[in-house]
Amino acid sequence: MHPFAGNLRDSVAGWGEERLIVEIRRWLGDVSPESPYGIGDDCAVLRRSRRQRLVTVDPVIFGRHFDATVPPRAAGEKLLKRNLSDIAAMGGRPLAAVVALTLDARVSRRWLEAFYRGIAAAARHHAVAIVGGDVAQAEGILAASLTLIGEATANRVVTRRGAKTGDWIFVTGELGRSVATGHHFRFRPRLTEGAWLARRSEVRAMIDVSDGLAKDLRALTPRGAVAALQEAALPRRRGATVRAALTEGEDYELLFAVAGRVDPEAWARTWRRALPHTRLGCIGRFVAGNAVPADALTLAEFQGYEHLRRA
Amino acid sequence: MHPFAGNLRDSVAGWGEERLIVEIRRWLGDVSPESPYGIGDDCAVLRRSRRQRLVTVDPVIFGRHFDATVPPRAAGEKLLKRNLSDIAAMGGRPLAAVVALTLDARVSRRWLEAFYRGIAAAARHHAVAIVGGDVAQAEGILAASLTLIGEATANRVVTRRGAKTGDWIFVTGELGRSVATGHHFRFRPRLTEGAWLARRSEVRAMIDVSDGLAKDLRALTPRGAVAALQEAALPRRRGATVRAALTEGEDYELLFAVAGRVDPEAWARTWRRALPHTRLGCIGRFVAGNAVPADALTLAEFQGYEHLRRA
Repeated sequence: MHPFAGNLRDSVAGWGEERLIVEIRRWLGDVSPESPYGIGDDCAVLRRSRRQRLVTVDPVIFGRHFDATVPPRAAGEKLLKRNLSDIAAMGGRPLAAVVALTLDARVSRRWLEAFYRGIAAAARHHAVAIVGGDVAQAEGILAASLTLIGEATANRVVTRRGAKTGDWIFVTGELGRSVATGHHFRFRPRLTEGAWLARRSEVRAMIDVSDGLAKDLRALTPRGAVAALQEAALPRRRGATVRAALTEGEDYELLFAVAGRVDPEAWARTWRRALPHTRLGCIGRFVAGNAVPADALTLAEFQGYEHLRRA
Repeated sequence: MHPFAGNLRDSVAGWGEERLIVEIRRWLGDVSPESPYGIGDDCAVLRRSRRQRLVTVDPVIFGRHFDATVPPRAAGEKLLKRNLSDIAAMGGRPLAAVVALTLDARVSRRWLEAFYRGIAAAARHHAVAIVGGDVAQAEGILAASLTLIGEATANRVVTRRGAKTGDWIFVTGELGRSVATGHHFRFRPRLTEGAWLARRSEVRAMIDVSDGLAKDLRALTPRGAVAALQEAALPRRRGATVRAALTEGEDYELLFAVAGRVDPEAWARTWRRALPHTRLGCIGRFVAGNAVPADALTLAEFQGYEHLRRA
């Protein structure tokens, strides 16, 4: 469905801001709490919690993250899910979100309804409340930015820092061809897995794979170490080359470091007992720069997706 | 300064996302904490607090909220300050913000630096940490959306609901001609005043005046009541007509209801002792629909600024 309506009567142009917000609340349904805990006041009030809070923000933009071939419901679901993946990568659980919408007055009412119903479906599934937002009009733009607030599930959050030389490198799921196969819309954020990992002290650092494993793994690599990967162990999606698995990105899998003292095969068996439905692979190890095995794959030659730069 | 650079060398096009984020952190300086409490991980971690948290989001968009005549520093300051005004209107204090930036690769480096330095200056002044964000590229767009997280300063937050028939209507500062005079960039968010008001139980409901008093007052008006205003009491900015004061918006003043049992003149004296530098006016009263004084100004004929609708 094209987001811009063929004629004005089908667009949001006839609605004022107040009417549009009434419709958005209707589309969100039960994931939109009453104010002041939801839409309708100067701020939304979040319920008290003693846990550490987490915050992350990511957008979807027409012409950039989706186009007219993408079902609006899928675009809405992705907007929330890509933020959920960031909460998962800290071992957190999501709580509440606000959505800043920027749209041309020609945007189709039907498109927008399906988009918000997509956000609502993903929010309902993951127990997220949509507590506020903003609607702004601007020529030629259709973009939505979602800020997600979460909290720690354990007595710590898992950051990108903390891996040590000797640690094992693990990744969930499969990599590569995410856009080609539609995985980047259909993926399930790894919230259960992230929370399980946060409770295990041998898990030292974690990130979600969004810009490609080659780039995201660099953020975990300890100073002075090299990530020595076993090419055969890379969990490639059907038809994905090694380069695709390492660089295409949008995988939304968890990449993490496990203390080197652990037996990786025994550890993977513990995982399988707890999380039998999520594939896990030990793909390599952080080694000293002068101790890279001859058969190891290193990342020097691969770049993850880099935004902004022109090729 | 025009936000789009005359030639590519002066634009952000040559920078990759990583370089741009390094520059943004440099521009933000000391208001950008180290990760995981700031930029640099999947989420930012917020420090624990037992208080009720508040969240609000507002954007600034090129072509909508600012144009090439506006200094980029002023646009950046306004982005934070319009969100601070929402926190003030709940009686809260601000804590942390995330900024989602969407920009064309032709945007000027100098423009962007001044914009972020404007955000940083306002953040420093109000003790806000800029803890995260996102950078996305999209053709022809320059927009930034800021989500601000705050907390209650008292044992309650002040919402828009709670006014009763008989309550007095007060407003801070002056109204009208905000855009014409540049007040909409220079205003000081009423955080001190909002926090003071939250500690006084006779203050029953509050909102910030952003869409025009006529519209915003409707959100405070109790069911079945009418806001009966005294035209002579309206604090108009120099040169502003009554219509301008009621409808232009962007005033960023606090509008609130005080219990009808209170003597409004004595109450205003208490205010002046506590907050001698902020003008306060009692502009009317919520009365029953059949008890509107003959000389009262009512809002039936005025509309605040309505977004989206075409005239």
